[in-house]
Amino acid sequence: MAPAGSSPVYHLPHPLPLDSGQALEGAQIAYETYGTLAEDASNAVLVCHALTGDQYLASPHPITGKPGWWERMVGPGKPIDTDRHFVICANVIGSCMGSSGPASLGPDGQPYAMRFPVITIRDMVRGLVALLDGLGIERLHAVVGGSMGGMQALSLAANWPERAARVLVIASTARHSAQNIAFHEVGRQAIMADPAWAAGDYYAGDARPDNGLAVARMAAHITYLSEAGLTEKFGRRLQDREAKGFGFDADFQVESYLRYQGSGFTRRFDANSYLYITRAMDYFDLAEEFGTEEHGGKLANAFAGTEARFCIVSFDTDWLYPTSESRHVVHALNAAGAKVSFVELSAPHGHDSFLLEHDQLDRVVKGFVEQ
Amino acid sequence: MAPAGSSPVYHLPHPLPLDSGQALEGAQIAYETYGTLAEDASNAVLVCHALTGDQYLASPHPITGKPGWWERMVGPGKPIDTDRHFVICANVIGSCMGSSGPASLGPDGQPYAMRFPVITIRDMVRGLVALLDGLGIERLHAVVGGSMGGMQALSLAANWPERAARVLVIASTARHSAQNIAFHEVGRQAIMADPAWAAGDYYAGDARPDNGLAVARMAAHITYLSEAGLTEKFGRRLQDREAKGFGFDADFQVESYLRYQGSGFTRRFDANSYLYITRAMDYFDLAEEFGTEEHGGKLANAFAGTEARFCIVSFDTDWLYPTSESRHVVHALNAAGAKVSFVELSAPHGHDSFLLEHDQLDRVVKGFVEQ
Repeated sequence: MAPAGSSPVYHLPHPLPLDSGQALEGAQIAYETYGTLAEDASNAVLVCHALTGDQYLASPHPITGKPGWWERMVGPGKPIDTDRHFVICANVIGSCMGSSGPASLGPDGQPYAMRFPVITIRDMVRGLVALLDGLGIERLHAVVGGSMGGMQALSLAANWPERAARVLVIASTARHSAQNIAFHEVGRQAIMADPAWAAGDYYAGDARPDNGLAVARMAAHITYLSEAGLTEKFGRRLQDREAKGFGFDADFQVESYLRYQGSGFTRRFDANSYLYITRAMDYFDLAEEFGTEEHGGKLANAFAGTEARFCIVSFDTDWLYPTSESRHVVHALNAAGAKVSFVELSAPHGHDSFLLEHDQLDRVVKGFVEQ
Repeated sequence: MAPAGSSPVYHLPHPLPLDSGQALEGAQIAYETYGTLAEDASNAVLVCHALTGDQYLASPHPITGKPGWWERMVGPGKPIDTDRHFVICANVIGSCMGSSGPASLGPDGQPYAMRFPVITIRDMVRGLVALLDGLGIERLHAVVGGSMGGMQALSLAANWPERAARVLVIASTARHSAQNIAFHEVGRQAIMADPAWAAGDYYAGDARPDNGLAVARMAAHITYLSEAGLTEKFGRRLQDREAKGFGFDADFQVESYLRYQGSGFTRRFDANSYLYITRAMDYFDLAEEFGTEEHGGKLANAFAGTEARFCIVSFDTDWLYPTSESRHVVHALNAAGAKVSFVELSAPHGHDSFLLEHDQLDRVVKGFVEQ
């Protein structure tokens, strides 16, 4: 948990200003890169990760030993081709894989815990832009993200429109809905109800709020999958038994799967980071971010004057960020006169489809990044 | 919690046989009645309650002081008219409002806790049938239920087809899906992760697993409401504040609402009962209940030869037990040659619509019960 990690770390030269009005002193960002930066720095692609993702985009995860989370999409000859592009993926501020977050040491040498400032999606992106500055990249060839990564891509396009020529947003939204907030609130309450959470000050002790974090992950995990996908994958099949056990063990495969997802997650993720990042997502509303006073709260105003090309992708079975939310973004981009293409892909697996095998998605990503 | 209650209690004269192969000795069922039983006992309507419901159908709840949960539907001159019908509502076995459940004392004088046998929907109905025997009611004018109450109505129709002339099933299903099971499993894990749960043996102590139970209730509550209903009711509106608080208090109204739902629930419900009843619901699969060997696992076989009239009602925004599940039941009833009518009602509020104001539902219920 919160390992030193093998990733390079960028130490921000200045305090990072935050939407809350605070500033984060001594912030650092851990990142991975793949491919070679062109001399004119014109071939950089920034991939933004999702809630529980990290910088291990196309290289093995140091804790789980599993392949990078988008290894099928990023690499030599792959849709995001590292023979042509210099691909960057950075752990977001607030997370726990080497970038500054609640598990990091504060100015007093103790872990921040809940003294870490509450951050927003825009704050995460501010950190990423600082990293781009550090790497000498003025304008990205493309910024790409799925789920929360898509929120970052939209926020970058809206707030730093000169920093990306192409913006690819997959299975995402420009605002968190009441239902999205509700599911996250269940997760946060599960963590904070765990006595081992200890108001966030658990780093020095032996106990961690693994039980609460596992429940939070289980609840969230249901939202990542479609009802039909769950039925296809598990149905009502029993786990390692011929008949119902008439007890409270995991009788059904779907129960066993969720328990496994929950407990596995606690090995690689920090509960306080889960609180902070879900909060940032719940706060996300790109139209509001720009102030209702100035722009009438209209999403289109967030993209006024943009010269970037946009590609918005949704999945027909995604009920977390359904196609209607992608359409909402597309309409705003149209209203802003932006160049935008939109595709709804058919996939059985719901929100998680962006992480799974999907030939059409591969073609869309490749076509857009290489255009 | 688990109060003696003011309801009449029926003490079963024989041990209650259970699907697990066990039998429940000394079982008792607490119930309420409304109206007067005709001399020939022909005017009885049994209303079956949902997961967290109870027998206080049309009279105030003794703990919360709130009106009965279906007071708008049951009473003099109401759709289920107590001037004409003798209406019975009984607390199900496994629950905590006076019927035998995990909080009840076992043969050794100690609360059963997790030594209470695991029960099924059919076991609940077996208890209800025993109560009907005790009340001298051979054949119900109608059995009516929403959500888990609908499961009981279907189980009664399938297993005791001679006991009901009319079967009204609202917002329900003949089987729990993988997604249904998954949400319940999150709730169970939240309860069992609470140290105060103490493997179920918390009745003698001061602490109860209220935190875990509240999280379980919050997760379930999201499934009772539609996404659009949540948006209409709460959207992204803030709670008692002008701007985001950049903290972890309930910034959004939907967070505040969920916390209130969670904490209020713990005042009136027993965590172990929540475990047992969700388990019973997850086990429910009416086709399978009849054995795949004997009937090929076909739902239609469950209703073979039935002479009852059926009415199946779904709501278009119910994603917990969607209309497709009601259609599945209707097709099976059609295949069995049963008399069945089916209506999908439009309502913005999802699964909970069956408990809310809905004139069309009132007309359907009145029309069917009085036909």
